[in-house]
Amino acid sequence: MEERFAELKTHLAEIHDLRRAQELLFWDQSVMMPPGGGSVRTHQVTTLDRIAHEKFVSDEVGTLLDALSDYELELDYDSDDASLIRTTRRDWEKARQVPAELAAEITGAGAEAYDVWAEARANNDYPLFLPHLERAVELKRRYIDCFGGYDEPYDVLLDDYERGMKTAEVRQVFDDLKAELVPLIAEIGSVDGDDGFMEGPWPTTAQHAYSLKIIESFGYDPSFARLDLTVHPFAASSGTQDIRLTTRYKEDDITSIFTAMHECGHGLYEHGVSGSLERTPLCHGVSSALHESQSRLWENIVGRSRPFWNHFYPSFQAAFPEAVGDVDQERFFRAINRVKPSYIRVDADEATYNLHIILRFELEQEIMAGTIDLKELPEIWNARFEEYLGIPVPSDTLGVLQDVHWSGGGFGYFPTYSLGNIVSVQIWEKVVSEIPDLHDQFEQGEFGQLHEWLRTNLYSLGRKYTPQETLERVVGTPAIDAAPYVRYLKDKLGALAAA
Amino acid sequence: MEERFAELKTHLAEIHDLRRAQELLFWDQSVMMPPGGGSVRTHQVTTLDRIAHEKFVSDEVGTLLDALSDYELELDYDSDDASLIRTTRRDWEKARQVPAELAAEITGAGAEAYDVWAEARANNDYPLFLPHLERAVELKRRYIDCFGGYDEPYDVLLDDYERGMKTAEVRQVFDDLKAELVPLIAEIGSVDGDDGFMEGPWPTTAQHAYSLKIIESFGYDPSFARLDLTVHPFAASSGTQDIRLTTRYKEDDITSIFTAMHECGHGLYEHGVSGSLERTPLCHGVSSALHESQSRLWENIVGRSRPFWNHFYPSFQAAFPEAVGDVDQERFFRAINRVKPSYIRVDADEATYNLHIILRFELEQEIMAGTIDLKELPEIWNARFEEYLGIPVPSDTLGVLQDVHWSGGGFGYFPTYSLGNIVSVQIWEKVVSEIPDLHDQFEQGEFGQLHEWLRTNLYSLGRKYTPQETLERVVGTPAIDAAPYVRYLKDKLGALAAA
Repeated sequence: MEERFAELKTHLAEIHDLRRAQELLFWDQSVMMPPGGGSVRTHQVTTLDRIAHEKFVSDEVGTLLDALSDYELELDYDSDDASLIRTTRRDWEKARQVPAELAAEITGAGAEAYDVWAEARANNDYPLFLPHLERAVELKRRYIDCFGGYDEPYDVLLDDYERGMKTAEVRQVFDDLKAELVPLIAEIGSVDGDDGFMEGPWPTTAQHAYSLKIIESFGYDPSFARLDLTVHPFAASSGTQDIRLTTRYKEDDITSIFTAMHECGHGLYEHGVSGSLERTPLCHGVSSALHESQSRLWENIVGRSRPFWNHFYPSFQAAFPEAVGDVDQERFFRAINRVKPSYIRVDADEATYNLHIILRFELEQEIMAGTIDLKELPEIWNARFEEYLGIPVPSDTLGVLQDVHWSGGGFGYFPTYSLGNIVSVQIWEKVVSEIPDLHDQFEQGEFGQLHEWLRTNLYSLGRKYTPQETLERVVGTPAIDAAPYVRYLKDKLGALAAA
Repeated sequence: MEERFAELKTHLAEIHDLRRAQELLFWDQSVMMPPGGGSVRTHQVTTLDRIAHEKFVSDEVGTLLDALSDYELELDYDSDDASLIRTTRRDWEKARQVPAELAAEITGAGAEAYDVWAEARANNDYPLFLPHLERAVELKRRYIDCFGGYDEPYDVLLDDYERGMKTAEVRQVFDDLKAELVPLIAEIGSVDGDDGFMEGPWPTTAQHAYSLKIIESFGYDPSFARLDLTVHPFAASSGTQDIRLTTRYKEDDITSIFTAMHECGHGLYEHGVSGSLERTPLCHGVSSALHESQSRLWENIVGRSRPFWNHFYPSFQAAFPEAVGDVDQERFFRAINRVKPSYIRVDADEATYNLHIILRFELEQEIMAGTIDLKELPEIWNARFEEYLGIPVPSDTLGVLQDVHWSGGGFGYFPTYSLGNIVSVQIWEKVVSEIPDLHDQFEQGEFGQLHEWLRTNLYSLGRKYTPQETLERVVGTPAIDAAPYVRYLKDKLGALAAA
């Protein structure tokens, strides 16, 4: 039996190698590749993807999993080996539901739609994108049809990013959040400030040095990670000891230091997965929401906190004398925490960000249910956006066309961004209950104990458990709960607005 | 029939994608990877290698090749399609001779031996390396046993790098070369000069800028290539439009500009392969010697020529004022062309370099024939080295242990370095016969016509033909001939010694 298990592990390790190679090729394409390399690179990535997929959905894996059923029951549920069999069986059963032709069609349509979307966004030309959006929706409906046993069709899409999560649950969480957020934003979003200094200049070499200074204090180390430049920042990994963070710098924008903290959060999660899970399908963060909870925790709960800036602000002023040499800490702190409705999701503040997401979540359900005529989507977007955020949308470029996700059929992903925000505070409250002096540590520039707690309690688990089981192990309940996040926003932003 | 051909092409394209991904992973490991990534990277590369190998030696390929025999005969011999079938059949038949277990054993033994070799070299400890060398030789003998139809066993090893090349032919070429070189070096190798200024300082940022300046004049362009830092420089490629050159800088050494020209030569070859061969096994330089002929042509015949420096020297002086501000061009020119016996092959000058190679070639044949007791190899090396180069070898670190090749079983590779030198001048004489004013063009900093000639006549062919067929198409004869190279060395170095 142990021989069959070793066979399964070897097979899965090979698939994992292919997946990691694919991830590195993507990183290289985004960060290093000369422009001429694009066309063959696409073939290379597609080939690795197809081979990995074929190897995974093979009958061979099914036969091994069947043969290992009894062995799994003998093992401790919490053991790496039982978790590997359990998680692989679930992944395999799901992957087998989708015919290879449909999977390939979705990938192909996404690749085709990407350039069209980019052109449509650049030219504010929704009709150009419309046929591709229609096709993406049609394909996603066929994808949903491959599955049974869901409460709502959208459950199938959510499950791809947040295994086991139900639409009804997200709806409840977002309803709770919206009910609190809309009035809160109406109240504090009107407080204006003199933030003109935020336009810099912020010399880019100093941005790079300061980004590194911050994330090194979080645990980033060049022995296992890099920080490079790209157009759309992301974090990737070729192994737990080979983490690739990316960022971007603009002379008139200091967002980069938050980008670095955000991507560092993703990277520390991947780095912290137990070494015993290396080269297995468990060697990853467990879900999109849990992953985002870590990028958001480091970026927002740590990086936009008062104790953090009490430590860093003097050296920050010294690093950027022209921009903030004569700006006092309070003014800077208010500027980086300013709540102000804006059009672009990725530039939104901590609070209004969630309204962008809730809007996408609602529209995605209606699109999948077919209750929206896609031709009218821009009008519906604009009306709903103004209702939630209080500002009129000037163009589709700044509206429904702003995000890439739908071009690739990525319906179901958006909600995990806000779920990540929410979970980040559930986890934060738990850490603080166990380490009450964390803020004192931040004042001293010490983040090691926080990192260690997160590593032990969350990162090391990888994909051993479901997201719900994982959350329960970390915070004591499997349920995502908006209340702590609302408390956190009210406390922090309310105080800033009142002061 | 065209359907079967398309099937073969698709299958080979996938294998090529895997090979290119493997090459990119190697590049990344050598240039970008954080040190922690090494252990999983080895697995990733091994997995890609195994899958590519399995896909290639499959019965499926054999069946397709059989089915395509008639189709091949209908096609023009020079067509891409006929060349693809012809070359693939030959590759496939060769690859099928070697049992997968032996191939894996050779790879595994090489990986194991590498670290031991590095330690042995660092500590001048040949006995430490000896058992690994013995195993490498034993495995290589078993490898030879997989094949038949050779004149001498060493033919099999040569063929891996220089398809169709016979040991007897190399022996004849090297005998011709040695007969001329030994007295030439004895004569001119004694001319000393005041080269102290070569120790710099050469600021490394200026080295990088100047390396780029030179190779950009050769045709390097960031739209399809990069130049990065590594420990042991090499050129790699992920596609004809994605060329990765590497180099290294030392403050007290200006070798880097020649390294850049050398690697650029390799890169321009890969870049120049016809776009119609992309994603096929023909998309590569045709052999090790032909490849080396191009790195050497750009490095030595161009980069160490008088017309080249007539153009570049003024700006070179301006870029490195501290080192050569008051060194006149003639003195610099003599220093970079100084012939002086030395211990380390990779640091050797244009002329003595070949004696290092001839020594390796002779020893490799004797080792394979079993006429040398490997325990006595250092003594034999040292005696022969002093005989050829006239200087005593102070240690095995500077002697038989200096090169990595044997640790990985890479017997048969060394000769291609000198064959590359020889071929480079055969090609050069041909180009000059067609473009007599090339040196005048160099004086103007113009290298475009040379590049274009090489691209049209050599690079674009890729692996469509055998190395012999390729050489014949370029210079008019399939035979490698040392005479032009000897003429070139005598003319250039003789003049320098006499002046």
